[in-house]
Amino acid sequence: MRVSKLFTKTLRDAPADEVAKNAQLLIRAGFVYKEMAGVYAYLPLGIRVVEKIKQIVREEMNAIDSNELIMTGLQRREVWEKTGRWSDETVDVWFKTKLQDDTELGLGWSHEEPIVEMMKQYVKSYKDLPVSLYQFQTKMRNELRAKSGIMRGREFVMKDMYSFHATSEDLAAYYDKTIEAYKRVYDRLGIGEDTYVTFASGGAFTKFSHEFQTVCDAGEDVIYLHRDKNIAINEEVIDDAVRELGISRDELEQVKTAETGNIFNFGSQKTDEMGLYYTGEDGKQQSLFIGSYGIGITRAMGVIAEKFSDDKGLVWPEAVAPYAVYLVSIGTKGSEEADRVYEELTNAGIEVLYDDRNERPGTKFADAELMGIPKRLTISDRGIESGEYELTVRSTGETKLVAPADLIDVLR
Amino acid sequence: MRVSKLFTKTLRDAPADEVAKNAQLLIRAGFVYKEMAGVYAYLPLGIRVVEKIKQIVREEMNAIDSNELIMTGLQRREVWEKTGRWSDETVDVWFKTKLQDDTELGLGWSHEEPIVEMMKQYVKSYKDLPVSLYQFQTKMRNELRAKSGIMRGREFVMKDMYSFHATSEDLAAYYDKTIEAYKRVYDRLGIGEDTYVTFASGGAFTKFSHEFQTVCDAGEDVIYLHRDKNIAINEEVIDDAVRELGISRDELEQVKTAETGNIFNFGSQKTDEMGLYYTGEDGKQQSLFIGSYGIGITRAMGVIAEKFSDDKGLVWPEAVAPYAVYLVSIGTKGSEEADRVYEELTNAGIEVLYDDRNERPGTKFADAELMGIPKRLTISDRGIESGEYELTVRSTGETKLVAPADLIDVLR
Repeated sequence: MRVSKLFTKTLRDAPADEVAKNAQLLIRAGFVYKEMAGVYAYLPLGIRVVEKIKQIVREEMNAIDSNELIMTGLQRREVWEKTGRWSDETVDVWFKTKLQDDTELGLGWSHEEPIVEMMKQYVKSYKDLPVSLYQFQTKMRNELRAKSGIMRGREFVMKDMYSFHATSEDLAAYYDKTIEAYKRVYDRLGIGEDTYVTFASGGAFTKFSHEFQTVCDAGEDVIYLHRDKNIAINEEVIDDAVRELGISRDELEQVKTAETGNIFNFGSQKTDEMGLYYTGEDGKQQSLFIGSYGIGITRAMGVIAEKFSDDKGLVWPEAVAPYAVYLVSIGTKGSEEADRVYEELTNAGIEVLYDDRNERPGTKFADAELMGIPKRLTISDRGIESGEYELTVRSTGETKLVAPADLIDVLR
Repeated sequence: MRVSKLFTKTLRDAPADEVAKNAQLLIRAGFVYKEMAGVYAYLPLGIRVVEKIKQIVREEMNAIDSNELIMTGLQRREVWEKTGRWSDETVDVWFKTKLQDDTELGLGWSHEEPIVEMMKQYVKSYKDLPVSLYQFQTKMRNELRAKSGIMRGREFVMKDMYSFHATSEDLAAYYDKTIEAYKRVYDRLGIGEDTYVTFASGGAFTKFSHEFQTVCDAGEDVIYLHRDKNIAINEEVIDDAVRELGISRDELEQVKTAETGNIFNFGSQKTDEMGLYYTGEDGKQQSLFIGSYGIGITRAMGVIAEKFSDDKGLVWPEAVAPYAVYLVSIGTKGSEEADRVYEELTNAGIEVLYDDRNERPGTKFADAELMGIPKRLTISDRGIESGEYELTVRSTGETKLVAPADLIDVLR
């Protein structure tokens, strides 16, 4: 991509009402546009980060045999009434709307109920189990406050997965498998070391559910952490959990975190409520066990932006960066050479954002830093004379000289 | 993909209230699930078709230098009031909702206004023009009736593109370029020959706009067609158009069509209303010219399903088929060989849906036909003995024998 063809511009200032660091940086660098509090459009650079995060999650969910689909935003009242979750008193984040004939509809803030309802069409017998489904869905949640930028949106992208099992043992095994898949996701996103499987409040079937909490100063949660024993406990269940685990609260460190994922064992409560059963090998009707597993895609992007940034701007980990290389041309010969190198790298499958604008080097360098592209490649008249390009690593600021012949190897 | 891992099942019957052929077939074949009238979930097979259509459109929009982004579903009242399009009297398809503080919001049925509003941040000078943007967005439209399956959804996927220009001449040139890009899209989707650039009602700036109308018995539009002269006119402007073009109405054939795309020249009306201007080379404030260009992604899928189907089911064109090959194994040796061939084809990059179920051949063949996968490859015990696989083309029903060594070449 040529910067000259990118319609966004870096901005000196974020909107005055934007208090979250992630959104301030993402707006200034041209990744997102604020439509209203908690509601952001994703611009060309931003959509590339979203898609990279989605692709990592997609690969790991496919690897545990989950099927991708996409449910609907518009929701029927009858479906949610079956579990008592239609009422605004029970669920305080509904956006509601109406058809022209006054039929009330909701906007999906979660999809457990409609997925269970749908599966009545497809799950009849033990032969149809187990099955796992997931989607990347734009969720709408009518949050009272939305001050954490893209970390808490009123409209945001979530990966939600649902698994259906004949026995609680089979569900438990898949639940554990999903924990491992999630760990791989966070590792690949570059936040694995700071993300903890955390005990959180459970439901009718299990004492605890599990959250994935990522250490982050801007997070809205507090967890208690034992780094050596790799134990993490959400504040909300700290009393129960220390008792259960036989540890002392004094051993635990209190840290601020953002919930980047959660997994929940519903047992057969929801399926029983909604009337989804299967016929066992013995021909008898049996209860069906389900789990639900979420990863906040845009929230993860916000957390990464918070954690990987400095006073100059964003510092994307390579796996989610919108482009791998920011190519800067300086001078007339530099531009000609950069045109050629841009083609060459692009043809080699390296993703390059090429700053071909007629701007001062300082402006180009500052934009490269604000956008947080992992590597900056500078081709100048002077460099061409000495037969060297300059390669600067965003995260460390280190610069080294690279001979043109070695370039592709160095960048791969 | 193994059919045994696909959670959907083909159904003998579509829901009784589903009157549209496209939805009947897509539901029976397991591509979509009906949530309510005009609101469909896209299941694993369906989402693959949607993504293939999107990718074709994406490539053609990128080729005319448009930038992909994604705007928001939630919409602010103030933005739409600037052009008088907030009122339910003016726009009768709004879904409205409310924040917890009672602020009224709308759900995006189109995105012209928010895009123009956003561009105030990025377009200041003639140097920032021209620019073109597009998105794949889930639109919500509160349609009074929704009886055409996925051809008219209350929730549906649309590609909408917007271009911004310094002069009306520059807009006109891009408008023409987009017509050519759209023709390439419809050609690649397999409906190019039946899709006509059609005169439709214009606006303040132009006498006519252009629709892309695809001949389709289930379509909701009527156009007048001169096939030899390649002239198509929407019923709504027939009187004006025949006069303008100097042709006789008697020469024209009346056909039913579905509007699969439209392009509209807004001139500077909307930008003037909303206060988006640019500074010219002379330092003076100038009006800005915009065009808007839509393609109904899920509607196009519905039209393709309507047009390419027979009494046995769907017949996808190769470019949008969820899989290229439906692999059927028959017998014990057949299954072992099919396992091996499935791996081999998948590794060669050929998309295979492998029916590895323990079902009768007739059941597998019927599902292959209902799902409309372009080629069916049958590997049976008998075939292995004679050293041949059976390859059947869905569209023609023709079967030929293929030697294992030639398989990949034949399928590529």
